[in-house]
Amino acid sequence: MAETVTAQEESVGVDFKDDIERIEPMHWWIGFKNTELQLLVKHPNISQAEPEVAYQGVSIEKVHNADSPNYLFIDLIISEKTKPGKFNITFKFKNGDLLEQTYELRARKKQAEDFVGFDSSDAIYLITPDRFANANNGNDINTSLKEKTIDRTDDYARHGGDIEGIIQHLDYIQDMGFTAIWSCPLLTNNMPKSSYHGYAITDYYEIDPRYGDMNDYLELAEEAKKHGIKLVMDQVVNHCGSEHWWITDLPFKDWLNYQENFENKGTLITSNHRRTTNQDRYASKSDKKGMSDGWFVSTMPDLNQRNPFMAKYLIQNSIWWIETAELGGIRQDTYPYPDKTFMSNWAGAIMEEYPNFSIVGEEWSYNPLLIGYWQDGANNKDGYDSNLKSPMDFAMQRLIVEALNEEEKWDTGLVKMYEGLANDFHYASPKDVMIFPDNHDMSRIFTQLNGDINNTKAALSYMLVLPRITQIYYGTELLMNDFEKPGDHGLVRTDFPGGWSEDAINGFTGKGLSEAQKDMQSYLKIMLNYRKVSKAIHQGETVHFAPKDGVYILFRQVQDETVIHVINKNEKPVRIDLTRFDEVGLNAKKVKNIITGAEFIWGNTLKLDTKGSLVLTTKLN
Amino acid sequence: MAETVTAQEESVGVDFKDDIERIEPMHWWIGFKNTELQLLVKHPNISQAEPEVAYQGVSIEKVHNADSPNYLFIDLIISEKTKPGKFNITFKFKNGDLLEQTYELRARKKQAEDFVGFDSSDAIYLITPDRFANANNGNDINTSLKEKTIDRTDDYARHGGDIEGIIQHLDYIQDMGFTAIWSCPLLTNNMPKSSYHGYAITDYYEIDPRYGDMNDYLELAEEAKKHGIKLVMDQVVNHCGSEHWWITDLPFKDWLNYQENFENKGTLITSNHRRTTNQDRYASKSDKKGMSDGWFVSTMPDLNQRNPFMAKYLIQNSIWWIETAELGGIRQDTYPYPDKTFMSNWAGAIMEEYPNFSIVGEEWSYNPLLIGYWQDGANNKDGYDSNLKSPMDFAMQRLIVEALNEEEKWDTGLVKMYEGLANDFHYASPKDVMIFPDNHDMSRIFTQLNGDINNTKAALSYMLVLPRITQIYYGTELLMNDFEKPGDHGLVRTDFPGGWSEDAINGFTGKGLSEAQKDMQSYLKIMLNYRKVSKAIHQGETVHFAPKDGVYILFRQVQDETVIHVINKNEKPVRIDLTRFDEVGLNAKKVKNIITGAEFIWGNTLKLDTKGSLVLTTKLN
Repeated sequence: MAETVTAQEESVGVDFKDDIERIEPMHWWIGFKNTELQLLVKHPNISQAEPEVAYQGVSIEKVHNADSPNYLFIDLIISEKTKPGKFNITFKFKNGDLLEQTYELRARKKQAEDFVGFDSSDAIYLITPDRFANANNGNDINTSLKEKTIDRTDDYARHGGDIEGIIQHLDYIQDMGFTAIWSCPLLTNNMPKSSYHGYAITDYYEIDPRYGDMNDYLELAEEAKKHGIKLVMDQVVNHCGSEHWWITDLPFKDWLNYQENFENKGTLITSNHRRTTNQDRYASKSDKKGMSDGWFVSTMPDLNQRNPFMAKYLIQNSIWWIETAELGGIRQDTYPYPDKTFMSNWAGAIMEEYPNFSIVGEEWSYNPLLIGYWQDGANNKDGYDSNLKSPMDFAMQRLIVEALNEEEKWDTGLVKMYEGLANDFHYASPKDVMIFPDNHDMSRIFTQLNGDINNTKAALSYMLVLPRITQIYYGTELLMNDFEKPGDHGLVRTDFPGGWSEDAINGFTGKGLSEAQKDMQSYLKIMLNYRKVSKAIHQGETVHFAPKDGVYILFRQVQDETVIHVINKNEKPVRIDLTRFDEVGLNAKKVKNIITGAEFIWGNTLKLDTKGSLVLTTKLN
Repeated sequence: MAETVTAQEESVGVDFKDDIERIEPMHWWIGFKNTELQLLVKHPNISQAEPEVAYQGVSIEKVHNADSPNYLFIDLIISEKTKPGKFNITFKFKNGDLLEQTYELRARKKQAEDFVGFDSSDAIYLITPDRFANANNGNDINTSLKEKTIDRTDDYARHGGDIEGIIQHLDYIQDMGFTAIWSCPLLTNNMPKSSYHGYAITDYYEIDPRYGDMNDYLELAEEAKKHGIKLVMDQVVNHCGSEHWWITDLPFKDWLNYQENFENKGTLITSNHRRTTNQDRYASKSDKKGMSDGWFVSTMPDLNQRNPFMAKYLIQNSIWWIETAELGGIRQDTYPYPDKTFMSNWAGAIMEEYPNFSIVGEEWSYNPLLIGYWQDGANNKDGYDSNLKSPMDFAMQRLIVEALNEEEKWDTGLVKMYEGLANDFHYASPKDVMIFPDNHDMSRIFTQLNGDINNTKAALSYMLVLPRITQIYYGTELLMNDFEKPGDHGLVRTDFPGGWSEDAINGFTGKGLSEAQKDMQSYLKIMLNYRKVSKAIHQGETVHFAPKDGVYILFRQVQDETVIHVINKNEKPVRIDLTRFDEVGLNAKKVKNIITGAEFIWGNTLKLDTKGSLVLTTKLN
């Protein structure tokens, strides 16, 4: 137990040292609501040492030994009056040895309220960074890392995409009309193979050198901001990569779930993936444990967030990144897999510090009951409050695809979209739910819709006018697909053409694109740029009408703008009766086709010549 | 406007008259919490008359004319001190004419609290009364009614079943282990054809003469009580039959929905059946109206419960039947079709008078969100409170059938039952939800399960051990089916063999039954009689384990009783590891097979020899 240090010293004139192998977080900030900070200190036999701090406003509240002698956890209190600056933490060993380590407390660059997350005004571009654009050939291979090859012909090898590649194409992303980027994890994945996907993090505080370095990431953040683009960081608290630096010397016996099996090379317990056990009032204890504690896959050790040091480590790591890169949001992986009490605490701690921030959590479920359960304000019968603003809408995604693919009958086809959206009555805040045509783990939307361009446009435009946050995967605008091997992860994450200097086709410039690709790119660009400024889409009232005779119409409306989304499944021309929609108040108003610019008067009937969708607006300019 | 009468008279010595064509309710009771009573009076030009009442405690609060001159609605106040008795209502016409009509206020036979409805301790036998047993040939044809034929060879004709037929077989129903009867409507359906189903009511206060009369119904109620059987009445407030007595002279212009179309023989507007409009926050006004106001079918005029006189009429009618027959519950037809505010008021008014009563409402939806919405205590985000204790579980019914029919894979087969039951976390009170293998509108369970007896037993026993109220359709015990024309309503409602004296086969006595039928009858009898006294089933904790290797196990548990339900999909013998279930605490305990009586010790493994289900208990006697 360390004595509480109250002595006061000026930073100025101190001789800063860097004796300690690892201290995390590497620095921190003054001015958080939570004045506590827990430092992880890793150094040979550091448990033998007593730490001391001499810096005005900073005190050591408690020092914890771990199970490994090479760790120390130091609880600091950073009082409100603390000034930014550097100071040394002194580690005194019983034998008289002394180690010193500089630590820095920085001033925050902006007010907590000014960290504004994504919301229903945003359309998010999801990028698999290894596959988007390779601007820097110099970082493609890093010989200090375990996977040392690059091979664009292998869907599961690294292809060389990097942060600079994203930065170079921010103009493109902005022009397309996107207002946010979610990149799959950019943190180091020092895994021997398939490290390209990013979800096997081996260092929570380091940018993977093959993507760039911290400066590149900060430049991305800065440049994105200049382009009006929010940066959403993909984080993973459920598991790390099996090559994480701490794996060879775990601080505690319960740092991982099923750690004993792992350390003794016993049977590896993988998750039962029974996600309903999080909600099920009848779920057995053993199934709950099997879901939460089992490993997602064998190369991803499952972190034990019930260990309070692990919990603090992960929470502080998230806050560190928000503050460092002025993030515009976090996407949290495999949301229902970590301990759910921890998840609520994690999100709660973030939202406490950043009241206007946004987090989206991945619950891959087609059941709106489970999706709704995870949303803040759900008012769950078991009392669980997630503090999570945005769950993902896998349910609606699937229903939209089914609706478009299926034949129109009483209970198939468009009615599935209609009734699926009706489930919104259950959500605490539908407009904060994230919808998407596909993502890095799913077959591409063009493939899901069997290569039907009209249906692809219908799905995309519907998702873009819904009361939702919309996420679109890179390359959707180029009809990227996985027909060859539907759903194959490597194939789904195909390189964006033009991201490599040697590419013959260039999606950024349009060079070599097919007419169909150009058409889709232009379609999405118009839709996204309309959406970007559309109050009706961002915050309008929604009203939709039950599909009838193969036509489904949804309206979004604010006082001076109505957006009208029409899906027509009829192959032959039909004329529909518009008087059915009188309550929307469009009669005799002029409306414009957002895509073609054609205008017409909303009268008693509307002729639909071709199968597909129309997006209309009353805003003529 | 009638003057308020405060004069006091004794009933004794009054000359009781019966001048009025129709007055409803025909009598009422003293002692309700609600001291108001609205009488519907129908008589030629009665609107010209002023009613007067002279009876201590009873006053006329208001008299309402209708649109038709032949109706008067009288609001009475029956003060708390009113004594039971008869009195005359005097109708004074301006021309001096006088009509007198006796009215009776009865004493209530039991306390409001003693009207106890069905609950999770009940198993309900659903009967289509025309098809169950014909005890009285004399009432088969009633020439004063429009459908004048009986033909057992025609599935849509009347077959002659009656109330006496049910009474005669109460012993059988009790022996089988049922504790309640729900008969499809027994009120008059004076329809020209297909009147047998009962849902086109033409008189809300009259037993259909082809089933018997009021005395028969009261005898059924009385005899059922003696057999420990609750009587559940099937009521229909959404629509009446097109031959209802009031159709030729409707009291108000808005007594029916779309009344003008009907009266002018215009286009008949049938319901759009878009039931999600009740919950959907985006539903258009026109779709909501299309759902609620459209007619269920063309022969069933849709009642306008927004007309306050209609609303009171229906509420009073329900209370009248509860009080008259000392009902043990109401089943309300087509629950999402009437005005939903009215439905809440209707159920609320009943529950206010009978706090321990039960109502089950039919929402035919596979979506637990909609099912849960209708249950009292749902805490809906739109503030709607249904006051309805029991919705029906069409969702779970379908999932159980799919689970048993499907091949075992990651997301098909038993996992569907498991994950379906997990949705219980959403319900305000799962044990008050009603589950059923089938009903009068669905293919028979044996047909749904493709004639697989093991699966049929598994479905039935699972439903009987769930935290639910269980309803079973008559004849399920005899493997009644509709293979010939799956789902055909007339065929689903086949005669119970032995219900007619000429029947060669008799399900009541066992005469002529096949071995398979006898076996199923015996199986259900044992299950039902076990369930009847099983605290574990009525009110136990539930714990279930995710299906594994084709085996799904669910436990129901109170301190001194555990019921174990096992479903095994493996065709070949398997030995399962029981240590996975250790948390249930059965280790080394003796358990008994409820069906065979065989006992064994719950050890580390259990061998399952055949595909099918096991129901075990720790209660050995």
